[in-house]
Amino acid sequence: MSLPPPTVPVAHTLDGTLGFEASEVGPELARGSFAAVDRVKQPYGLVHGGAFAALAESLASRATSEAVAGEGLIAVGLSNHTSFLRPVIQGAVHGEARRRHRGRTTWLWEVDFSDDAGRLCAVSRVTMAVRPRAV
Amino acid sequence: MSLPPPTVPVAHTLDGTLGFEASEVGPELARGSFAAVDRVKQPYGLVHGGAFAALAESLASRATSEAVAGEGLIAVGLSNHTSFLRPVIQGAVHGEARRRHRGRTTWLWEVDFSDDAGRLCAVSRVTMAVRPRAV
Amino acid sequence: MSLPPPTVPVAHTLDGTLGFEASEVGPELARGSFAAVDRVKQPYGLVHGGAFAALAESLASRATSEAVAGEGLIAVGLSNHTSFLRPVIQGAVHGEARRRHRGRTTWLWEVDFSDDAGRLCAVSRVTMAVRPRAV
Amino acid sequence: MSLPPPTVPVAHTLDGTLGFEASEVGPELARGSFAAVDRVKQPYGLVHGGAFAALAESLASRATSEAVAGEGLIAVGLSNHTSFLRPVIQGAVHGEARRRHRGRTTWLWEVDFSDDAGRLCAVSRVTMAVRPRAV
Repeated sequence: MSLPPPTVPVAHTLDGTLGFEASEVGPELARGSFAAVDRVKQPYGLVHGGAFAALAESLASRATSEAVAGEGLIAVGLSNHTSFLRPVIQGAVHGEARRRHRGRTTWLWEVDFSDDAGRLCAVSRVTMAVRPRAV
Repeated sequence: MSLPPPTVPVAHTLDGTLGFEASEVGPELARGSFAAVDRVKQPYGLVHGGAFAALAESLASRATSEAVAGEGLIAVGLSNHTSFLRPVIQGAVHGEARRRHRGRTTWLWEVDFSDDAGRLCAVSRVTMAVRPRAV
Repeated sequence: MSLPPPTVPVAHTLDGTLGFEASEVGPELARGSFAAVDRVKQPYGLVHGGAFAALAESLASRATSEAVAGEGLIAVGLSNHTSFLRPVIQGAVHGEARRRHRGRTTWLWEVDFSDDAGRLCAVSRVTMAVRPRAV
Repeated sequence: MSLPPPTVPVAHTLDGTLGFEASEVGPELARGSFAAVDRVKQPYGLVHGGAFAALAESLASRATSEAVAGEGLIAVGLSNHTSFLRPVIQGAVHGEARRRHRGRTTWLWEVDFSDDAGRLCAVSRVTMAVRPRAV
């Protein structure tokens, strides 16, 4: 059993709107990035904190959902805690999500964000709830 | 002394791109909202967790920045912790940010998000660092 | 159906060891406090950050556990996020936990800590998982 | 310049009271542990969530304080976010704190906790503020 088809075309979602690209989505690791262009920035030219949080959420959510779909389960975000370490003004933001815990009812991911020079710019912790699809 | 002019037109920023509207921005309270349309959703039709986190960040950041600009200070986001309580699929998401702490170097805001029926959908805690502008 | 009897006498637990006292424990509000004496301090005479986190955890955990025991459910801590706003060196620390969300599988509490002068010293967000007892 | 002498004997502090032992404290890594005995437990025999949070706080605080003391700076805890993954009922809890960010005004640590079998039981993120001593 796999994931049901999306009800919103991905290009129209937040991910499509902000230019997020996932390059790898697996049950223990997921990677994605976005370009540091105006649509992900705040008014002073820095990447908006919400863009980091959103990419973390997308990676953890998609990776968990795909991993549990075969068991008839869905994944729902419980919390997202993102700390901002270094501003990004140009180039791209690269996120790498590592699964730290796979429980029966919750999964926990930690996400590191780096800039094109490989410097750590932000970290996220995302907790996903895993539940039966029908509920 | 007031805030310097934005370097990115607001309509082009993340806030403009996702349709965020601030209705009130003061030193202790800020309010804003966005419509639950495709561009703030994930592929299954729910409002994306990152959209809540982003609006919280915008409200806290803008309110703190405006409040400290007169002292030659800037505000920079340190962390954003958003918990998701109830999915939103239609209508609008309304955020209300209350300042809980005004320290010399950090401000802390708590943000409640509700749907059109007034049900609590998410909560955020945003910590802002306050620093001299020139540094 | 009520809570099963404790397996560790309360005086021997962390709560007893650190001098925590709960004055009110209900399904929507819980209050407790501890004296700012050496056993809750770090070596420089300030109340240890872990003491705030621990009291928040105790209040939310006990309040949720008592509230759901009648349905054959147990409560287990999922996460605790405590922000420190103002050091405490003497007197007592007073915690007030308010329930913000009561879901089927998670409850969320926010806890404010104040000193004897009523000044806000720390805030916690505690997420509890609620599960069938037998599992 | 080194750290000033403690004003509370360590045996009388929270760390001493709960039996925390630090085995390594350096500018990028710190390790410590405690025995899973009654004084760190909640009434049902599990290690109290606050004990994990407290050890994380102690390790990050002590490691940062020692690292910046030579520059006339002090470290103060800003926030502690601990997620609980697996209960511990016996043996010992082992914490390993890794520094993820060393900024001018904040340091960020991530702490992994494991049991005697090496299983991940909890994770913490601790943010420390670094400030001039005299302020």
